[in-house]
Amino acid sequence: MSRIVYLNGQWLPEDEAKVSIFDRAFLMGDAIYEVTCVLDGALLDYEGHAARLRRSARELRLTLPLDEDALLQAHHEIVARNKMQSGMIYLQLSRGVAERDFAFPPADTPPTLVMFTQAKDVLANRAADTGISVALLPDLRWGRRDIKTVQLLYPSMAKMEARDRGADDAWLYEDGFVTEASAATAHIVTADGHLVTRDLSHALLAGVTRAAVLSLAQTHGITVQERAFTPDESRAAREAFITSATNFVVPVVRIDNQVIGDGTPGALTRDLRTQYIATRRAAALAPA
Amino acid sequence: MSRIVYLNGQWLPEDEAKVSIFDRAFLMGDAIYEVTCVLDGALLDYEGHAARLRRSARELRLTLPLDEDALLQAHHEIVARNKMQSGMIYLQLSRGVAERDFAFPPADTPPTLVMFTQAKDVLANRAADTGISVALLPDLRWGRRDIKTVQLLYPSMAKMEARDRGADDAWLYEDGFVTEASAATAHIVTADGHLVTRDLSHALLAGVTRAAVLSLAQTHGITVQERAFTPDESRAAREAFITSATNFVVPVVRIDNQVIGDGTPGALTRDLRTQYIATRRAAALAPA
Repeated sequence: MSRIVYLNGQWLPEDEAKVSIFDRAFLMGDAIYEVTCVLDGALLDYEGHAARLRRSARELRLTLPLDEDALLQAHHEIVARNKMQSGMIYLQLSRGVAERDFAFPPADTPPTLVMFTQAKDVLANRAADTGISVALLPDLRWGRRDIKTVQLLYPSMAKMEARDRGADDAWLYEDGFVTEASAATAHIVTADGHLVTRDLSHALLAGVTRAAVLSLAQTHGITVQERAFTPDESRAAREAFITSATNFVVPVVRIDNQVIGDGTPGALTRDLRTQYIATRRAAALAPA
Repeated sequence: MSRIVYLNGQWLPEDEAKVSIFDRAFLMGDAIYEVTCVLDGALLDYEGHAARLRRSARELRLTLPLDEDALLQAHHEIVARNKMQSGMIYLQLSRGVAERDFAFPPADTPPTLVMFTQAKDVLANRAADTGISVALLPDLRWGRRDIKTVQLLYPSMAKMEARDRGADDAWLYEDGFVTEASAATAHIVTADGHLVTRDLSHALLAGVTRAAVLSLAQTHGITVQERAFTPDESRAAREAFITSATNFVVPVVRIDNQVIGDGTPGALTRDLRTQYIATRRAAALAPA
């Protein structure tokens, strides 16, 4: 069955959703996006994603054509139209269609707003049971990773390079410190049980799941250190994991050739995953 | 009159040229491009652009669906269909349409190839007569600028920031050295008359016009130094200029608040522009 997608106020079968070749997302990577997880047909951590979308837009002088209510209703409607119980909603906002020019088009150029769904059983995640392996690779992305843009070629290349090295995914490093996973936040647990996560800056995205997991850890008495950590510290960690909107918390059990802990998902990692899912599921936004 | 553009083997009015929202150029910046200048209806420095396109494709494991002859014929045909005497041909190759995933789609996924024209009197360029002013800004682009990808948001932002500062364009710097202009190669002429241009690396694009101009300078007995230079050296330069496919050689007469030379286009800069246009025009590829 074909998905129904959203394009500039219209609901269309996915095969009919087309944009001009002059769209600035297509020609210049001039667009931002968000991904929201859906579970039980409801939206997880929606407010965090909506707030980050508005921040990305402000940073790039983009205008979201929907107000708060309309944006939320569009999220609920795309779930309903696709009868999706579990999966994700992808939303992208570009600067719209204009003659190709490095200068921005006039501010009243209509932006392009796209939404589509990807159905997926977000709870049954084999990687959560077994853990994943990661390869450490240099971070060659641009300098404003706090803005969630569609300039994703390097993360995509890194994912392929990691696979070529026999790993599931990549952790990226720059100037001697880990920045992020290819499309997730990187975390480690030290030998003395502290949770270490890089502090926020232009070097990484302010992960919505990252914030929730740090808060859960603190609530449960875990010491959280928000600071940059090195590849060596990562390899010496007791536990390691990634967080993202649709993978929640996924253990990392090998970094390059180094087995982490005993090579199985760590206890704190498993706890945080369970707690994250339970608390977010209970607080999920169902349609009115 | 509407342009005729090329999309995957079809010639279409520009308003009908649309791509799927699932195209990887639109969703992930996963595409490369080239711009070739047209003068007298013929192609300038075509071989250099075609060779660089193939190199960009190889670096990213992209496949160009046209062989050498077909690519050249498509360039001639788009000029003829649009009756263009002077302007540029833009060509873009993306990894094609696939379900959104950081992993590349299967290698046999059909790529998306787009071409369009922009008519412009490339000889009558006011900036060449008066020179332009540039603002020095940090280079926040990704680390593989030798590959000509569509991830152009930062150059676009830099162009806008330069304008906000009262300048025409930006020169970017990183780790204490100038890398490039926002969409052109940066050059200076030192007090003792040497032409200084940054040496090729992953930090900058191997400019086709850059190579031609360096060769012309050497032919005329100018000492060429291919090395990185600093913002301070730029501000102290006797002359400064940029090179690009459609602007050829354009003088820079102010860098931040520093007037370069006497504030008018330098003698060597003007010579190089004249020689570049004359030699390229004489060698341009006309249709068979």
